[in-house]
Amino acid sequence: MAVSNIRYGEGVTKEIGMDLQNLGARRVCLMTDKNLSQLPPVNAVLNSLAKYGINFQMYDNVRVEPTDQSFLDAIRFAKKGEFDAYVAVGGGSVIDTCKAANLYASSPTSDFLDYVNAPIGKGKPVTVPLKPLIAVPTTAGTGSETTGVAIFDFKELKVKTGIASRAIKPTLGIIDPLHTLSMPERIVANSGFDVLCHALESYTALPYNMRSPCPSNPINRPAYQGSNPISDVWALHALRIVAKYLKRAIRNPEDHEARANMHLASAFAGIGFGNAGVHLCHGMSYPISGLVKTYKPKDYNVDHSLVPHGLSVVLTSPAVFAFTAQIHPERHLEAAEILGADIRTARIKDAGFILAETLRKFLFDLNVDDGLAAIGYSKADIPALVKGTLPQERVTKLSPRPQTEEDLSALFEASMKLY
Amino acid sequence: MAVSNIRYGEGVTKEIGMDLQNLGARRVCLMTDKNLSQLPPVNAVLNSLAKYGINFQMYDNVRVEPTDQSFLDAIRFAKKGEFDAYVAVGGGSVIDTCKAANLYASSPTSDFLDYVNAPIGKGKPVTVPLKPLIAVPTTAGTGSETTGVAIFDFKELKVKTGIASRAIKPTLGIIDPLHTLSMPERIVANSGFDVLCHALESYTALPYNMRSPCPSNPINRPAYQGSNPISDVWALHALRIVAKYLKRAIRNPEDHEARANMHLASAFAGIGFGNAGVHLCHGMSYPISGLVKTYKPKDYNVDHSLVPHGLSVVLTSPAVFAFTAQIHPERHLEAAEILGADIRTARIKDAGFILAETLRKFLFDLNVDDGLAAIGYSKADIPALVKGTLPQERVTKLSPRPQTEEDLSALFEASMKLY
Ligand SMILES: NC(=O)c1ccc[n+]([C@@H]2O[C@H](COP(=O)([O-])OP(=O)(O)OC[C@H]3O[C@@H](n4cnc5c(N)ncnc54)[C@H](O)[C@@H]3O)[C@@H](O)[C@H]2O)c1
Ligand SMILES: NC(=O)c1ccc[n+]([C@@H]2O[C@H](COP(=O)([O-])OP(=O)(O)OC[C@H]3O[C@@H](n4cnc5c(N)ncnc54)[C@H](O)[C@@H]3O)[C@@H](O)[C@H]2O)c1
Ligand SMILES: [Fe+2]
Ligand SMILES: [Fe+2]
Repeated sequence: MAVSNIRYGEGVTKEIGMDLQNLGARRVCLMTDKNLSQLPPVNAVLNSLAKYGINFQMYDNVRVEPTDQSFLDAIRFAKKGEFDAYVAVGGGSVIDTCKAANLYASSPTSDFLDYVNAPIGKGKPVTVPLKPLIAVPTTAGTGSETTGVAIFDFKELKVKTGIASRAIKPTLGIIDPLHTLSMPERIVANSGFDVLCHALESYTALPYNMRSPCPSNPINRPAYQGSNPISDVWALHALRIVAKYLKRAIRNPEDHEARANMHLASAFAGIGFGNAGVHLCHGMSYPISGLVKTYKPKDYNVDHSLVPHGLSVVLTSPAVFAFTAQIHPERHLEAAEILGADIRTARIKDAGFILAETLRKFLFDLNVDDGLAAIGYSKADIPALVKGTLPQERVTKLSPRPQTEEDLSALFEASMKLY
Repeated sequence: MAVSNIRYGEGVTKEIGMDLQNLGARRVCLMTDKNLSQLPPVNAVLNSLAKYGINFQMYDNVRVEPTDQSFLDAIRFAKKGEFDAYVAVGGGSVIDTCKAANLYASSPTSDFLDYVNAPIGKGKPVTVPLKPLIAVPTTAGTGSETTGVAIFDFKELKVKTGIASRAIKPTLGIIDPLHTLSMPERIVANSGFDVLCHALESYTALPYNMRSPCPSNPINRPAYQGSNPISDVWALHALRIVAKYLKRAIRNPEDHEARANMHLASAFAGIGFGNAGVHLCHGMSYPISGLVKTYKPKDYNVDHSLVPHGLSVVLTSPAVFAFTAQIHPERHLEAAEILGADIRTARIKDAGFILAETLRKFLFDLNVDDGLAAIGYSKADIPALVKGTLPQERVTKLSPRPQTEEDLSALFEASMKLY
């Protein structure tokens, strides 16, 4: 397993100009989104760049929940700029876009599909050297500052997919909890649900020694290698922080302690799932986001419909863990206990049910929309949702329990209504 | 913080030939010590090298508890061999020697003192590129496979010191618990005490945000940055494993579960202290090892006197934590509880005393020599021991409680007899 460099602390963003000097950067690409370009995190970075006289160009056209088209737009910008370093200031949407821009600008003759995950793309290994990328996360969610993954919505196919390679992992993640203070309530909630699912899915993923086929040459092993004793440490630790702090972080924007802890938890969970992988909540979330109709979430300052990533993963979580618990019930029970369930008299065979109920209560308390129906889906959409899940093999095969199309159908159906 | 790559699993050593092929290695330097060269871990590596047709030269002249002279011998071998990759199979002595050999062979015009820690050496930053180094630990102790540290005994000065740079961190650590099965009892015990102290010291080290001076340019920050929320996770996790498995691993060579868990714990604690640092047990251990008289430990198949590193750190631990507890008593109490103390009615002001007593009991149960007196030191040696500790500033300044020479004297004196 591998972990990227992280620097943590209130205000550490002010050093970013020095980091770029140390890297010898002469032409820096600063990426963010339109909303963030007006907010304190981007300001802090701009101040430091100015202080250290760093020459940069800013791209603030990142699309929230990026698409192939929005990735391509950023790639064009990167190719034209001939940059020697990248800085991404934002949530997963910005960091992922910046990873892709760096990758394709460093590999200018590649076709866009070359590096996209198979079977949608060709899934070629990255062999070109990339430029340094410093990620400054502003949500407490994706952990993208620690992972070699960049996710986008493939518009023609109406499905989310991504690029996965250790090569695109940021050189440095600057985790400055001050940046979380400007997040409105629903962004804290939805990005926090992503942390919750990263932790739960990586902790319950198929164990690394049960994965098959196991490529005999280590170089061909997938980035997502199944749950293992190291990722377990990160997953459990992140889950405990979520249990303790997520509600506080959502309810009180002034609660520095809670927001700072969630910011760290998102990196911890990222290190965990970046090595172990995620499974069904994520696999099923991609069509939930990709097929969005007219849903416009509260607190998102954007003009297109979207299902925020964290919401798209968490809505199926009660159904998913009720389904998977059969395999490692004791881990499911342990997770339920961490999330507040009293398991003293619990029977191990009820583990799935108990974790599902615990999650429902947790989500209800946090005013989460009442299931897939509440965000615009009906029974008639289930075949399309199932079809969109099938190409997500890279993650769904990490589910501890194998699934048929009928199983997936049943899981979507059970997620239509939560309470 | 940064972590190196780790591969974990029984039998994973068999892939090392393929790893070297993937690295394009054409001339490999295999380092080990004379004792290990006859044992299963080296055999497993040789078999894989043969299977994949890897061209290599073997150096088995590593000194257990290396010295400047033994480092220089290995460096000469490395320079002459013009290797393009290194494999170290052994405990900390082998891995550290191999790091030094790789460093100086990659920087052939450097003087030996250039990279040695100041104030003993010049402590220059490493700017040359090194060759890949794969570390295969065979003890469950140093965690050297995860750290950028190489320790040696500076004979003329009669003091242990080292080289510390992220540049010498191994490219890959192969943690194959099968290798721990051939360790005799005292090697399991002593290397396990090293894990115990790495965990306890890094968990109680001065917090990262209280370190001073805090170099304003991140590039000048020391590798040991003080305890922090990330290293805490590793330290506590390693400590829990030590509490659960060390005794079993020592007592029963057939207890695969216990030995495998200790093997992982040594890497976990290594990642923790490699970022946070260690403090007084380690700072004081260097003269305890360096000034050794005639002590010859049981189970060590070597012909010179030595105090095994793990023993040299653990003998002062009761005195050290009784001294430091004043600063973060709650962390000392937490550690005592993890190690088995009943703290339900404990008073916070007794934290140091409680942890010290818990350690004494732990060591007594494991037949550890009764203090510094039992390994040949007397009161008359204390001034020399103190003098040997003073240049260890790099670690002693990470003690949560500052110490005078008188304090050090008292700590050595209190460590003469343990029970
Ligand atoms: N690369 C990975 O490892 C990984 C993992 C999980 C998810 N993802 C992807 O990341 C994306 C989601 O990222 P996200 O959840 O971090 O959110 P996001 O980047 O999509 O941002 C959501 C909204 O929050 C706003 N925002 C962000 N930080 C803010 C702040 N500090 N103050 C005020 N507003 C702020 C943004 O402007 C945006 O409108 C999805 O595309 C998802 O698929 C990637
Ligand atoms: N680099 C670091 O981060 C770091 C940290 C702590 C200590 N150290 C250093 O590491 C050295 C100590 O290393 P160590 O404790 O791992 O022991 P070691 O390498 O000194 O080995 C001790 C003895 O155990 C034998 N041995 C090792 N593995 C065996 C096995 N599987 N079966 C049978 N015999 C085996 C060796 O042959 C040797 O005789 C010291 O020099 C210490 O200062 C380095
Ligand atoms: Fe996610
Ligand atoms: Fe040590």
